[in-house]
Amino acid sequence: MKKIVTISRSFSSGGREVGKRLAQELGYAYYDKQLLKKISQETGFSSEYIEKYGESSASYLSYPITIAQTLISTYQMPNESIQIAQTNIVREIGQKGNCVIIGRRGDRILKDEKSILKVFIYSSDMDQRIQRCYKKSPEDKDKSPQVMKKKIIAVDKDRAKYYRYYSDQNWGVMDNYNLCIDTSKIDIKQAVKLIILAMQD
Amino acid sequence: MKKIVTISRSFSSGGREVGKRLAQELGYAYYDKQLLKKISQETGFSSEYIEKYGESSASYLSYPITIAQTLISTYQMPNESIQIAQTNIVREIGQKGNCVIIGRRGDRILKDEKSILKVFIYSSDMDQRIQRCYKKSPEDKDKSPQVMKKKIIAVDKDRAKYYRYYSDQNWGVMDNYNLCIDTSKIDIKQAVKLIILAMQD
Repeated sequence: MKKIVTISRSFSSGGREVGKRLAQELGYAYYDKQLLKKISQETGFSSEYIEKYGESSASYLSYPITIAQTLISTYQMPNESIQIAQTNIVREIGQKGNCVIIGRRGDRILKDEKSILKVFIYSSDMDQRIQRCYKKSPEDKDKSPQVMKKKIIAVDKDRAKYYRYYSDQNWGVMDNYNLCIDTSKIDIKQAVKLIILAMQD
Repeated sequence: MKKIVTISRSFSSGGREVGKRLAQELGYAYYDKQLLKKISQETGFSSEYIEKYGESSASYLSYPITIAQTLISTYQMPNESIQIAQTNIVREIGQKGNCVIIGRRGDRILKDEKSILKVFIYSSDMDQRIQRCYKKSPEDKDKSPQVMKKKIIAVDKDRAKYYRYYSDQNWGVMDNYNLCIDTSKIDIKQAVKLIILAMQD
Protein backbone atom coordinates (compact mmCIF):
# COMPACT_ATOMS: atom_id res chain seq x y z
CA MET A 1 0.00 0.00 0.00
CA LYS A 2 1.39 3.38 -1.01
CA LYS A 3 1.24 5.71 1.96
CA ILE A 4 2.00 9.08 0.41
CA VAL A 5 -0.13 10.59 -2.33
CA THR A 6 0.90 13.82 -4.01
CA ILE A 7 -1.74 15.59 -6.07
CA SER A 8 -0.52 17.95 -8.74
CA ARG A 9 -3.28 19.61 -10.68
CA SER A 10 -4.04 21.98 -13.47
CA PHE A 11 -6.07 25.01 -12.40
CA SER A 12 -9.82 24.54 -12.12
CA SER A 13 -9.71 20.79 -12.74
CA GLY A 14 -11.08 19.72 -9.34
CA GLY A 15 -7.72 18.40 -8.12
CA ARG A 16 -7.98 19.93 -4.67
CA GLU A 17 -11.40 18.37 -4.16
CA VAL A 18 -10.08 14.98 -5.26
CA GLY A 19 -7.29 15.30 -2.68
CA LYS A 20 -9.62 16.36 0.12
CA ARG A 21 -12.06 13.50 -0.47
CA LEU A 22 -9.23 11.03 -0.83
CA ALA A 23 -7.74 12.02 2.53
CA GLN A 24 -11.19 11.74 4.16
CA GLU A 25 -11.81 8.29 2.69
CA LEU A 26 -8.41 7.00 3.78
CA GLY A 27 -8.27 8.80 7.13
CA TYR A 28 -5.00 10.35 5.96
CA ALA A 29 -3.58 13.73 6.92
CA TYR A 30 -4.43 16.34 4.30
CA TYR A 31 -1.83 19.01 3.52
CA ASP A 32 -2.98 22.06 1.67
CA LYS A 33 -3.75 25.19 3.72
CA GLN A 34 -2.31 23.32 6.70
CA LEU A 35 0.99 23.20 4.89
CA LEU A 36 0.87 26.96 4.43
CA LYS A 37 0.36 27.38 8.18
CA LYS A 38 3.40 25.23 8.92
CA ILE A 39 5.56 27.18 6.46
CA SER A 40 4.24 30.40 7.98
CA GLN A 41 5.27 29.28 11.49
CA GLU A 42 8.71 28.30 10.22
CA THR A 43 9.47 31.42 8.21
CA GLY A 44 7.44 34.15 9.87
CA PHE A 45 5.72 35.09 6.60
CA SER A 46 1.92 35.19 6.60
CA SER A 47 -0.06 32.29 5.10
CA GLU A 48 -1.53 34.73 2.56
CA TYR A 49 1.92 35.78 1.38
CA ILE A 50 3.04 32.16 1.11
CA GLU A 51 -0.13 31.20 -0.75
CA LYS A 52 0.48 34.00 -3.22
CA TYR A 53 4.17 33.45 -3.84
CA GLY A 54 5.01 29.96 -2.60
CA GLU A 55 3.80 28.15 -5.71
CA SER A 56 4.19 30.86 -8.29
CA SER A 57 6.92 32.04 -10.60
CA ALA A 58 6.48 35.38 -8.83
CA SER A 59 8.49 33.75 -6.04
CA TYR A 60 11.67 34.44 -7.97
CA LEU A 61 10.47 37.22 -10.24
CA SER A 62 8.89 39.53 -7.70
CA TYR A 63 11.89 41.84 -7.39
CA PRO A 64 13.49 44.05 -10.00
CA ILE A 65 16.78 42.38 -10.93
CA THR A 66 19.05 45.08 -9.53
CA ILE A 67 17.33 45.08 -6.14
CA ALA A 68 17.31 41.29 -6.12
CA GLN A 69 21.01 41.19 -6.85
CA THR A 70 21.75 43.56 -3.97
CA LEU A 71 19.51 41.61 -1.63
CA ILE A 72 20.88 38.23 -2.62
CA SER A 73 24.43 39.35 -1.93
CA THR A 74 23.56 40.48 1.61
CA TYR A 75 20.94 38.00 2.78
CA GLN A 76 18.74 35.24 1.45
CA MET A 77 15.70 36.41 -0.51
CA PRO A 78 12.45 35.86 1.42
CA ASN A 79 11.00 33.57 -1.22
CA GLU A 80 14.05 31.37 -1.16
CA SER A 81 13.49 30.94 2.58
CA ILE A 82 9.92 29.90 1.85
CA GLN A 83 11.09 27.32 -0.69
CA ILE A 84 13.65 25.90 1.73
CA ALA A 85 11.12 25.71 4.58
CA GLN A 86 8.61 24.13 2.19
CA THR A 87 11.11 21.47 1.15
CA ASN A 88 11.99 20.62 4.76
CA ILE A 89 8.38 20.48 5.91
CA VAL A 90 7.25 18.33 2.96
CA ARG A 91 10.14 15.94 3.73
CA GLU A 92 9.04 15.67 7.37
CA ILE A 93 5.45 15.05 6.35
CA GLY A 94 6.59 12.39 3.90
CA GLN A 95 8.57 10.63 6.61
CA LYS A 96 5.46 10.40 8.78
CA GLY A 97 3.49 8.95 5.81
CA ASN A 98 -0.29 8.41 5.55
CA CYS A 99 -0.77 11.77 3.88
CA VAL A 100 -2.17 13.55 0.86
CA ILE A 101 -0.18 16.58 -0.27
CA ILE A 102 -1.61 19.12 -2.71
CA GLY A 103 0.87 20.82 -5.03
CA ARG A 104 3.91 22.60 -3.57
CA ARG A 105 6.37 20.39 -5.43
CA GLY A 106 5.45 17.47 -3.16
CA ASP A 107 5.94 15.07 -6.08
CA ARG A 108 9.49 16.31 -6.71
CA ILE A 109 10.57 16.70 -3.08
CA LEU A 110 9.42 13.16 -2.26
CA LYS A 111 10.17 11.55 -5.61
CA ASP A 112 12.59 9.00 -4.16
CA GLU A 113 10.15 7.69 -1.54
CA LYS A 114 9.17 4.11 -2.35
CA SER A 115 5.66 4.32 -0.97
CA ILE A 116 4.61 7.34 -3.01
CA LEU A 117 1.92 7.62 -5.67
CA LYS A 118 2.25 10.79 -7.75
CA VAL A 119 -1.09 11.82 -9.20
CA PHE A 120 -1.87 14.55 -11.71
CA ILE A 121 -5.46 15.79 -12.04
CA TYR A 122 -6.44 17.71 -15.18
CA SER A 123 -9.46 18.39 -17.31
CA SER A 124 -9.28 18.20 -21.10
CA ASP A 125 -12.55 20.15 -21.39
CA MET A 126 -11.94 23.91 -21.26
CA ASP A 127 -15.68 24.70 -20.98
CA GLN A 128 -15.93 22.58 -17.86
CA ARG A 129 -12.90 24.34 -16.38
CA ILE A 130 -14.42 27.73 -17.15
CA GLN A 131 -17.65 26.73 -15.39
CA ARG A 132 -15.76 25.51 -12.33
CA CYS A 133 -13.71 28.71 -12.24
CA TYR A 134 -16.89 30.78 -12.60
CA LYS A 135 -18.49 29.10 -9.57
CA LYS A 136 -15.43 29.74 -7.40
CA SER A 137 -14.75 33.35 -8.43
CA PRO A 138 -16.06 36.22 -6.30
CA GLU A 139 -19.32 37.81 -7.43
CA ASP A 140 -17.90 41.33 -7.64
CA LYS A 141 -15.30 40.42 -10.29
CA ASP A 142 -15.63 40.13 -14.06
CA LYS A 143 -16.73 36.54 -14.56
CA SER A 144 -17.08 36.45 -18.32
CA PRO A 145 -15.93 33.21 -19.99
CA GLN A 146 -13.11 35.14 -21.71
CA VAL A 147 -11.77 36.38 -18.37
CA MET A 148 -12.13 32.93 -16.77
CA LYS A 149 -10.26 31.30 -19.67
CA LYS A 150 -7.48 33.86 -19.49
CA LYS A 151 -7.11 33.24 -15.76
CA ILE A 152 -6.99 29.45 -16.20
CA ILE A 153 -4.29 29.68 -18.86
CA ALA A 154 -2.30 32.22 -16.82
CA VAL A 155 -2.36 30.16 -13.59
CA ASP A 156 -1.29 26.98 -15.41
CA LYS A 157 1.50 28.84 -17.16
CA ASP A 158 2.68 30.26 -13.88
CA ARG A 159 2.65 26.87 -12.12
CA ALA A 160 4.64 25.41 -15.00
CA LYS A 161 7.22 28.21 -14.74
CA TYR A 162 7.53 27.78 -10.98
CA TYR A 163 7.87 24.00 -11.26
CA ARG A 164 10.47 24.29 -13.99
CA TYR A 165 12.50 26.80 -12.00
CA TYR A 166 12.62 24.83 -8.76
CA SER A 167 12.51 21.26 -10.08
CA ASP A 168 14.26 21.49 -13.43
CA GLN A 169 11.43 19.36 -14.79
CA ASN A 170 8.41 20.05 -16.94
CA TRP A 171 5.14 20.42 -15.07
CA GLY A 172 2.21 18.40 -16.41
CA VAL A 173 4.41 16.00 -18.38
CA MET A 174 3.13 12.51 -17.61
CA ASP A 175 6.56 10.95 -17.08
CA ASN A 176 6.80 12.90 -13.80
CA TYR A 177 3.64 11.26 -12.40
CA ASN A 178 2.29 7.73 -11.95
CA LEU A 179 -1.38 8.29 -12.64
CA CYS A 180 -3.02 11.13 -14.58
CA ILE A 181 -6.80 11.51 -14.48
CA ASP A 182 -8.98 13.67 -16.71
CA THR A 183 -11.92 14.92 -14.64
CA SER A 184 -13.86 15.87 -17.77
CA LYS A 185 -14.36 12.15 -18.41
CA ILE A 186 -13.85 10.59 -14.96
CA ASP A 187 -15.74 12.47 -12.26
CA ILE A 188 -14.28 13.39 -8.89
CA LYS A 189 -15.82 10.51 -6.90
CA GLN A 190 -14.60 8.04 -9.50
CA ALA A 191 -11.15 9.65 -9.51
CA VAL A 192 -10.90 9.07 -5.74
CA LYS A 193 -11.81 5.39 -6.20
CA LEU A 194 -9.20 5.05 -8.95
CA ILE A 195 -6.45 6.49 -6.77
CA ILE A 196 -7.33 4.16 -3.87
CA LEU A 197 -7.20 1.19 -6.23
CA ALA A 198 -3.88 2.37 -7.68
CA MET A 199 -2.39 2.63 -4.17
CA GLN A 200 -2.83 -1.08 -3.58
CA ASP A 201 0.19 -3.23 -4.29
CA MET B 1 -20.28 2.27 -19.22
CA LYS B 2 -17.77 3.37 -21.84
CA LYS B 3 -17.76 0.86 -24.68
CA ILE B 4 -14.68 1.84 -26.65
CA VAL B 5 -11.20 1.86 -25.14
CA THR B 6 -8.26 3.15 -27.13
CA ILE B 7 -4.81 2.30 -25.82
CA SER B 8 -1.97 4.54 -26.87
CA ARG B 9 1.39 3.55 -25.45
CA SER B 10 5.00 4.44 -25.30
CA PHE B 11 7.30 1.72 -26.63
CA SER B 12 8.16 -1.11 -24.25
CA SER B 13 5.77 0.06 -21.54
CA GLY B 14 3.48 -3.01 -21.57
CA GLY B 15 0.60 -1.15 -23.24
CA ARG B 16 -0.23 -3.91 -25.69
CA GLU B 17 -0.41 -6.46 -22.86
CA VAL B 18 -2.70 -4.17 -20.88
CA GLY B 19 -5.00 -3.92 -23.90
CA LYS B 20 -5.02 -7.65 -24.54
CA ARG B 21 -5.87 -8.53 -20.95
CA LEU B 22 -8.48 -5.80 -20.78
CA ALA B 23 -10.27 -7.15 -23.87
CA GLN B 24 -10.17 -10.67 -22.41
CA GLU B 25 -11.59 -9.52 -19.05
CA LEU B 26 -14.40 -7.57 -20.70
CA GLY B 27 -15.11 -10.02 -23.52
CA TYR B 28 -14.48 -7.13 -25.96
CA ALA B 29 -13.10 -7.36 -29.46
CA TYR B 30 -9.36 -6.67 -29.51
CA TYR B 31 -7.91 -4.77 -32.45
CA ASP B 32 -4.19 -4.92 -32.94
CA LYS B 33 -2.86 -7.39 -35.50
CA GLN B 34 -6.47 -8.02 -36.49
CA LEU B 35 -6.69 -4.38 -37.51
CA LEU B 36 -3.65 -4.86 -39.75
CA LYS B 37 -5.36 -7.78 -41.44
CA LYS B 38 -8.45 -5.70 -42.14
CA ILE B 39 -6.37 -2.84 -43.57
CA SER B 40 -4.45 -5.39 -45.64
CA GLN B 41 -7.68 -6.79 -47.10
CA GLU B 42 -8.89 -3.29 -47.89
CA THR B 43 -5.72 -1.96 -49.49
CA GLY B 44 -3.98 -5.01 -50.89
CA PHE B 45 -0.76 -4.25 -48.99
CA SER B 46 0.68 -7.00 -46.82
CA SER B 47 0.15 -6.92 -43.04
CA GLU B 48 3.94 -6.73 -42.63
CA TYR B 49 4.15 -3.63 -44.81
CA ILE B 50 1.29 -1.99 -42.93
CA GLU B 51 2.82 -2.87 -39.58
CA LYS B 52 6.10 -1.30 -40.66
CA TYR B 53 4.74 1.88 -42.17
CA GLY B 54 1.18 2.31 -40.92
CA GLU B 55 2.12 3.83 -37.56
CA SER B 56 5.44 5.36 -38.41
CA SER B 57 6.64 8.66 -39.72
CA ALA B 58 8.21 6.58 -42.52
CA SER B 59 4.68 6.46 -43.91
CA TYR B 60 5.16 9.92 -45.31
CA LEU B 61 8.94 10.10 -45.39
CA SER B 62 9.72 6.87 -47.17
CA TYR B 63 10.18 8.43 -50.60
CA PRO B 64 12.76 10.93 -51.79
CA ILE B 65 10.93 14.24 -52.15
CA THR B 66 11.26 14.56 -55.89
CA ILE B 67 9.91 11.08 -56.53
CA ALA B 68 7.14 11.67 -53.99
CA GLN B 69 6.16 14.89 -55.73
CA THR B 70 5.91 13.14 -59.07
CA LEU B 71 3.95 10.26 -57.57
CA ILE B 72 1.56 12.46 -55.67
CA SER B 73 0.67 14.40 -58.77
CA THR B 74 -0.24 11.26 -60.69
CA TYR B 75 -1.79 8.95 -58.09
CA GLN B 76 -2.26 8.65 -54.36
CA MET B 77 0.81 7.52 -52.41
CA PRO B 78 0.42 3.96 -51.05
CA ASN B 79 0.80 5.08 -47.45
CA GLU B 80 -1.91 7.65 -47.82
CA SER B 81 -4.22 4.82 -48.96
CA ILE B 82 -3.26 2.90 -45.82
CA GLN B 83 -4.07 5.89 -43.62
CA ILE B 84 -7.44 6.40 -45.29
CA ALA B 85 -8.33 2.70 -45.00
CA GLN B 86 -7.18 2.75 -41.37
CA THR B 87 -9.42 5.73 -40.59
CA ASN B 88 -12.46 4.10 -42.21
CA ILE B 89 -11.92 0.76 -40.53
CA VAL B 90 -11.36 2.29 -37.08
CA ARG B 91 -14.57 4.29 -37.52
CA GLU B 92 -16.51 1.12 -38.40
CA ILE B 93 -15.06 -0.69 -35.40
CA GLY B 94 -15.98 2.25 -33.17
CA GLN B 95 -19.55 2.17 -34.40
CA LYS B 96 -19.87 -1.47 -33.43
CA GLY B 97 -18.47 -0.65 -29.96
CA ASN B 98 -17.35 -3.11 -27.24
CA CYS B 99 -13.78 -2.96 -28.43
CA VAL B 100 -10.19 -2.28 -27.38
CA ILE B 101 -8.05 -0.63 -30.05
CA ILE B 102 -4.27 -0.48 -29.79
CA GLY B 103 -2.58 2.57 -31.28
CA ARG B 104 -3.22 3.47 -34.93
CA ARG B 105 -4.62 6.89 -34.05
CA GLY B 106 -7.75 5.23 -32.62
CA ASP B 107 -7.95 7.97 -29.97
CA ARG B 108 -7.98 10.72 -32.60
CA ILE B 109 -10.20 9.01 -35.16
CA LEU B 110 -12.84 8.25 -32.50
CA LYS B 111 -12.31 11.31 -30.33
CA ASP B 112 -15.89 12.55 -30.72
CA GLU B 113 -17.48 9.27 -29.60
CA LYS B 114 -19.24 9.75 -26.27
CA SER B 115 -18.64 6.25 -24.99
CA ILE B 116 -14.88 6.31 -25.46
CA LEU B 117 -12.14 6.08 -22.83
CA LYS B 118 -8.75 7.15 -24.17
CA VAL B 119 -5.93 5.53 -22.24
CA PHE B 120 -2.20 6.15 -22.45
CA ILE B 121 0.20 3.56 -21.02
CA TYR B 122 3.77 4.58 -20.28
CA SER B 123 6.62 3.71 -17.97
CA SER B 124 8.63 6.38 -16.21
CA ASP B 125 11.41 3.88 -15.44
CA MET B 126 13.83 3.56 -18.37
CA ASP B 127 15.59 0.54 -16.83
CA GLN B 128 12.31 -1.36 -16.70
CA ARG B 129 11.63 -0.46 -20.33
CA ILE B 130 15.10 -1.64 -21.35
CA GLN B 131 14.50 -4.98 -19.58
CA ARG B 132 11.13 -5.43 -21.30
CA CYS B 133 12.66 -4.58 -24.67
CA TYR B 134 15.52 -7.01 -24.02
CA LYS B 135 13.11 -9.87 -23.35
CA LYS B 136 11.21 -9.24 -26.57
CA SER B 137 14.16 -8.70 -28.90
CA PRO B 138 15.48 -11.58 -31.04
CA GLU B 139 18.47 -13.45 -29.67
CA ASP B 140 20.63 -12.91 -32.76
CA LYS B 141 20.57 -9.10 -32.44
CA ASP B 142 22.71 -6.77 -30.33
CA LYS B 143 20.79 -6.62 -27.05
CA SER B 144 23.06 -4.33 -25.05
CA PRO B 145 21.28 -1.80 -22.79
CA GLN B 146 22.65 1.04 -24.96
CA VAL B 147 21.11 -0.44 -28.11
CA MET B 148 17.81 -1.16 -26.33
CA LYS B 149 17.63 2.41 -25.01
CA LYS B 150 18.40 3.86 -28.42
CA LYS B 151 15.64 1.74 -29.95
CA ILE B 152 13.09 2.81 -27.29
CA ILE B 153 13.83 6.49 -27.82
CA ALA B 154 13.75 6.11 -31.60
CA VAL B 155 10.39 4.29 -31.69
CA ASP B 156 8.77 6.83 -29.35
CA LYS B 157 10.13 9.69 -31.42
CA ASP B 158 8.82 8.09 -34.57
CA ARG B 159 5.34 7.52 -33.10
CA ALA B 160 5.24 11.12 -31.97
CA LYS B 161 6.19 12.33 -35.46
CA TYR B 162 3.56 10.12 -37.09
CA TYR B 163 0.85 11.23 -34.64
CA ARG B 164 1.72 14.87 -35.12
CA TYR B 165 1.65 14.56 -38.89
CA TYR B 166 -1.72 12.83 -39.15
CA SER B 167 -3.50 14.29 -36.09
CA ASP B 168 -2.00 17.73 -35.73
CA GLN B 169 -1.73 16.97 -32.03
CA ASN B 170 1.13 16.10 -29.74
CA TRP B 171 1.48 12.43 -28.91
CA GLY B 172 1.86 11.55 -25.23
CA VAL B 173 0.48 14.89 -24.03
CA MET B 174 -2.03 14.06 -21.30
CA ASP B 175 -4.72 16.46 -22.51
CA ASN B 176 -5.31 14.12 -25.46
CA TYR B 177 -6.18 11.19 -23.17
CA ASN B 178 -8.51 10.54 -20.24
CA LEU B 179 -6.37 8.23 -18.15
CA CYS B 180 -2.58 7.84 -18.19
CA ILE B 181 -1.00 4.97 -16.27
CA ASP B 182 2.67 4.50 -15.39
CA THR B 183 3.42 0.76 -15.45
CA SER B 184 6.65 1.29 -13.51
CA LYS B 185 4.51 1.99 -10.44
CA ILE B 186 1.17 0.35 -11.28
CA ASP B 187 1.62 -3.15 -12.67
CA ILE B 188 -0.21 -4.51 -15.70
CA LYS B 189 -2.89 -6.44 -13.78
CA GLN B 190 -3.60 -3.38 -11.66
CA ALA B 191 -3.70 -1.16 -14.74
CA VAL B 192 -6.41 -3.39 -16.24
CA LYS B 193 -8.47 -3.10 -13.03
CA LEU B 194 -8.07 0.69 -13.08
CA ILE B 195 -9.29 0.98 -16.66
CA ILE B 196 -12.35 -1.20 -15.93
CA LEU B 197 -13.17 1.02 -12.94
CA ALA B 198 -12.67 4.18 -15.01
CA MET B 199 -15.06 2.86 -17.68
CA GLN B 200 -17.95 2.81 -15.21
CA ASP B 201 -20.18 5.87 -15.22
